[in-house]
Amino acid sequence: MIAHLADIESMEKSFRTNLINHLSGAKAAHLLGTYNEQHQSNLAIFSNVIHIGANPAMMGVLFRPVGADSHTYKNIQANKRFTLNQIPVSLVPQAHQTSARYPLGISEFEACGIEEETIPEFDGPFVKQSLVKMGLIWEEEHLIKSNQTVLLVGKIQYISIHDSILLPDGHIDLAVAQSVSAGGLDTYYQVKKLAQFPYAKVSADASHEPRRNS
Amino acid sequence: MIAHLADIESMEKSFRTNLINHLSGAKAAHLLGTYNEQHQSNLAIFSNVIHIGANPAMMGVLFRPVGADSHTYKNIQANKRFTLNQIPVSLVPQAHQTSARYPLGISEFEACGIEEETIPEFDGPFVKQSLVKMGLIWEEEHLIKSNQTVLLVGKIQYISIHDSILLPDGHIDLAVAQSVSAGGLDTYYQVKKLAQFPYAKVSADASHEPRRNS
Repeated sequence: MIAHLADIESMEKSFRTNLINHLSGAKAAHLLGTYNEQHQSNLAIFSNVIHIGANPAMMGVLFRPVGADSHTYKNIQANKRFTLNQIPVSLVPQAHQTSARYPLGISEFEACGIEEETIPEFDGPFVKQSLVKMGLIWEEEHLIKSNQTVLLVGKIQYISIHDSILLPDGHIDLAVAQSVSAGGLDTYYQVKKLAQFPYAKVSADASHEPRRNS
Repeated sequence: MIAHLADIESMEKSFRTNLINHLSGAKAAHLLGTYNEQHQSNLAIFSNVIHIGANPAMMGVLFRPVGADSHTYKNIQANKRFTLNQIPVSLVPQAHQTSARYPLGISEFEACGIEEETIPEFDGPFVKQSLVKMGLIWEEEHLIKSNQTVLLVGKIQYISIHDSILLPDGHIDLAVAQSVSAGGLDTYYQVKKLAQFPYAKVSADASHEPRRNS
């Protein structure tokens, strides 16, 4: 299929939503945990999470335009704290169910059957079964003017990684972790390792330092 | 492993880089094509690409702090146009090699053995073997103050998707497409489909519309 701008703009709405959401490929899916001002927990699935930087350690989350029912966004504004929890294969149905429109005050942990974990060191609800968990504090945010989405950036304060998936050089084996990626809004994928490479160098000129764009 | 902020800050540098880059899970990898002002082509691998919105159709790319050798970023500033090309499994070694620090004026298409494709309708270099290709125009960008990275947002002008992977409802079968995801800076994964779900609804109250956070 070839589509130009006019074709994209005139696509049937759900076809376009599915299509454009798939163009970014399989994206790691996370469960994002927050507390509201009454310290009730909230949990929601997000696949638009982006690595911002390693030092300081920061992650970004893209939020849909903020409306009356944007519980997660409002909780972060109120408390500045949130958690990101990688989704293991065994939790996919429950994680998807968190995307239902539960009323304010209903915890998706309870409603969807996901075990909540709390720790003394960070005031945010974690997903007990996740093998990779992070606690973050709001750092900055940016309004995308073109469509009123918001990129919210958090600084990582706390990391918990199961020892079975952490390698000595800091790599995480995402295949052993059974880390789940999402395609579009409703399809989930598991990853299988293909290859690992050394830093790429220009062969004829070893004096250049390797670089990565991302 | 449990790490608090002080632990993260005192980690050995390459260990921290590997670790934090893996926390965001397996991220779809793309080859980003541009022209410089002399219309010489440039190609670079990026794994920090994010879905911004479906209507208007937009994608975001996170750039490292812009320096003297940020060819891709500068080309986009000059020409406003760039392409994103999903990486098929067969192209992984060549795609990784584009991360080497080639001098200005050397095309990574040639240097890395990747076939370049041009089309009349969009002035940007595409990767011929990619099954999903996009042409985008610069729309807006945001400086992340905490670490001087830049989120650059482009509006999709052109889409090419191989018919073998496009489903009637707009889904792309990312497993059949052999779409590649990256873990950290040097590890590549293939995806395998796990499950597809209907829109999640609150079971006791069917009057609520389904929603998705991402």
